[in-house]
Amino acid sequence: MIDPRFYTLLGPVPVSALADWATVRGDASRVVLGVAALDGAGESDLAYFDASKGDVPSTAAGVLIVREKAAPSARSGAVLILAREPRAHFARVAARLAVDRPFQTDGALIAADARVEAGAIIGPGVVIGPGAEVGAESVIGPNAVIGPGVTIGRRTRIGPGASIVCAYVGDGVTILAGARIGQTGFGVAGDAAGLVDVPHFGRAIIQDGASIGACTTVDRGLFGDTIVAEGAKIDNLCQIAHNVVIGRGAVIAAFGGISGSTQVGDGVMMGGRVGIADHRAIGRGAQLAAGSAVMHDVPAGETWAGYPAKPVRQWLRETAWLSRAIGKRDNG
Amino acid sequence: MIDPRFYTLLGPVPVSALADWATVRGDASRVVLGVAALDGAGESDLAYFDASKGDVPSTAAGVLIVREKAAPSARSGAVLILAREPRAHFARVAARLAVDRPFQTDGALIAADARVEAGAIIGPGVVIGPGAEVGAESVIGPNAVIGPGVTIGRRTRIGPGASIVCAYVGDGVTILAGARIGQTGFGVAGDAAGLVDVPHFGRAIIQDGASIGACTTVDRGLFGDTIVAEGAKIDNLCQIAHNVVIGRGAVIAAFGGISGSTQVGDGVMMGGRVGIADHRAIGRGAQLAAGSAVMHDVPAGETWAGYPAKPVRQWLRETAWLSRAIGKRDNG
Amino acid sequence: MIDPRFYTLLGPVPVSALADWATVRGDASRVVLGVAALDGAGESDLAYFDASKGDVPSTAAGVLIVREKAAPSARSGAVLILAREPRAHFARVAARLAVDRPFQTDGALIAADARVEAGAIIGPGVVIGPGAEVGAESVIGPNAVIGPGVTIGRRTRIGPGASIVCAYVGDGVTILAGARIGQTGFGVAGDAAGLVDVPHFGRAIIQDGASIGACTTVDRGLFGDTIVAEGAKIDNLCQIAHNVVIGRGAVIAAFGGISGSTQVGDGVMMGGRVGIADHRAIGRGAQLAAGSAVMHDVPAGETWAGYPAKPVRQWLRETAWLSRAIGKRDNG
Repeated sequence: MIDPRFYTLLGPVPVSALADWATVRGDASRVVLGVAALDGAGESDLAYFDASKGDVPSTAAGVLIVREKAAPSARSGAVLILAREPRAHFARVAARLAVDRPFQTDGALIAADARVEAGAIIGPGVVIGPGAEVGAESVIGPNAVIGPGVTIGRRTRIGPGASIVCAYVGDGVTILAGARIGQTGFGVAGDAAGLVDVPHFGRAIIQDGASIGACTTVDRGLFGDTIVAEGAKIDNLCQIAHNVVIGRGAVIAAFGGISGSTQVGDGVMMGGRVGIADHRAIGRGAQLAAGSAVMHDVPAGETWAGYPAKPVRQWLRETAWLSRAIGKRDNG
Repeated sequence: MIDPRFYTLLGPVPVSALADWATVRGDASRVVLGVAALDGAGESDLAYFDASKGDVPSTAAGVLIVREKAAPSARSGAVLILAREPRAHFARVAARLAVDRPFQTDGALIAADARVEAGAIIGPGVVIGPGAEVGAESVIGPNAVIGPGVTIGRRTRIGPGASIVCAYVGDGVTILAGARIGQTGFGVAGDAAGLVDVPHFGRAIIQDGASIGACTTVDRGLFGDTIVAEGAKIDNLCQIAHNVVIGRGAVIAAFGGISGSTQVGDGVMMGGRVGIADHRAIGRGAQLAAGSAVMHDVPAGETWAGYPAKPVRQWLRETAWLSRAIGKRDNG
Repeated sequence: MIDPRFYTLLGPVPVSALADWATVRGDASRVVLGVAALDGAGESDLAYFDASKGDVPSTAAGVLIVREKAAPSARSGAVLILAREPRAHFARVAARLAVDRPFQTDGALIAADARVEAGAIIGPGVVIGPGAEVGAESVIGPNAVIGPGVTIGRRTRIGPGASIVCAYVGDGVTILAGARIGQTGFGVAGDAAGLVDVPHFGRAIIQDGASIGACTTVDRGLFGDTIVAEGAKIDNLCQIAHNVVIGRGAVIAAFGGISGSTQVGDGVMMGGRVGIADHRAIGRGAQLAAGSAVMHDVPAGETWAGYPAKPVRQWLRETAWLSRAIGKRDNG
């Protein structure tokens, strides 16, 4: 179930109102209340299965968008919407079921029901949405934006002009100027009608003692959470994509880019401008040299470098060998 | 002619007031009303020709800043300002002719003549400049800034703290938190007095259904337009320079950097951290692997990778060969 | 001494209140007033020496955090706090001595004692902190934030939503939308209790005629200054780390990343996405090709390229040779 602190459910909506031109297999008058990933869905949820091969995984979703080919493998109790491009279909209809919880529209900068603990300092021009909370001794910089339902812990500092939505932020966190936390992630689905953004219904979790640099972006999860764990330190101008987990005490220097669903282990150290492909795992304590482009999993404790990244010894050997080989040819 | 929605013309100004220490050839009392590129200039416009070789291209510009060597090739009816560094000269005097249309100074967040259609939602702290328009069902996030004369279409969503100036934004567009649209581009001219920013008088056009990520920057054109075409999808922390065209349905992952005047074709797909040099053309449907640094034109439909980028097969061959060559030497 | 325009001193504080669980050698009731680097510290300052080898450099610091091993080399008049990790110890206690000068809390956007010269234009929603100054003919864009004590010169333009703290900004400077100037730098210290951010007490100096791009970040110095010198031109989405010096008329294209304490000489030209390691020196007039990852000092006037960067001729030779070598093997 999506977190009602951050999303407003618009339903109930009958399946027929979610089918558009697709065929419905089952009771089209069945009502849907929410959206969910396959593995978290319940009887009243809409979910989708996009793979072009294989069976629908086990899911309790009451309504399922699937390709016709996968339909036979779906649970018999589920109502099916048969779509050529299930992810794109989901992207086009999900906003009929749930949308971002809105900011106040009464002109107030701080929503009437936002809760600011005594001792917190709210800068000039700060906007705080409905149901948000700011803990004692926290300082919110001028013109920052704290979204509806967001919680900010104690002794946390938010820089000028930063924005934080769909997020839980812990104690003793530092978020610098212009950082962007919890916006929708980058997910593009395509069908005959063109490209469509896949809406995101997850959250961003910034745990105690973590730090986020200026103009760094931490997208929220698609359904689940994007997590920056305790004491992780992220420099300016980094991109942390949807559903990424940054481990405890991991350090990421400027321009680090972590693609969707990648897991960065505890204590991993990354030099500047390291990129990691999606769905990768970087083992605990691994070190990635500045400028590495990591396309594979990296075992715990190893040091990698290069484009594409490889164990640093191999990279150094290749780099040095190439220089020597050319040198010989030129002088020999 | 530059777009009066975004720029205020200050003239008429006589050529003598634009010459500074340069020689004027022709009637120095002739008045100038505007600025333009050579190919769009008219009788009342100031334009410049900076090349150190070759003839002045055909232009109807009434007043022209040129090097002395190029003067003989200029249209006989034009008044000439003979400068050692025409681009720098232009950069130093253009602000006497035209400047950015200013925001209101009466203390109001929303200008009296801004037009917000019924059903649009304007967040707390939002600033909207004179003559700007926001269409129905659009949502402007808290503390965002919509510049003078900007038009925002319908069903478009602007994130918290984003700023949009000198721009037309279509329907169904998504612009995430902290994105920066339409600021002046990066153009540096130099003369004996040092470096000077070349002022930009163009626009940024974000067409229907396009999406722009958090902290992504889309600079306006020098005179013409920077265009993000229909349904193009751009991730966080990308840089789209002046006069770039991003084609329909093109997809650009995080940290993409497109240098000035480059044309990215329809349906081009770019992995993370792809850079493209200026004045290049990436053909329709081409794919650029994550981390590519593209210094050449890429034909339609091809896949390139590497630094410098080359066709992906060649890049893979070189990468693999190098690893094997070293491996042999070490073990042989 | 740290600059009182930007920092509030909280002391006097006795050494005993700064020791936590560490041993104090000397008079624990001695009071401390400020924090400083070793070479700038005076009798009333707290400083730290973190090296695990070597003697404490000559310093007038009255109170010194050192490892026990280095204690014998410290000046006999100094009170010593013996810590396993002096930098981490400093990071944990420094905020008891000095903190960022706060913004006004009376709800005003512009502090009562901020000074705005006649002819300056302050956009809607702009926040200006106590003691800040804005010079004549400068324009501060909507929703920008000017921190306590900051001075902005004349004819300077600050874009929408930018933030500037702990900084001196000269005349004729351009800072584009969303740029972030003067926030704390990225410094991480670790001890048994985990990672902690090293607080920064320095400044950012943006000299006359410099330009800073959209979403570019310029961190303040640790104790000293980060400097962008006269007429330097920095594009969008660049990162200038703590204590960096960017020379006069240097040009840095988009995604440039300059690591801590590196010196970029006058007139250096950098293509897009150049990275430079920390504590490097790039000589006057050097050129760094787009995408270079510079790990060494670069002599004045040289052109370097590559990852890792090397003189451009060598890089071109290696790149071309590799392509030819593979080509031969495939065809031979």
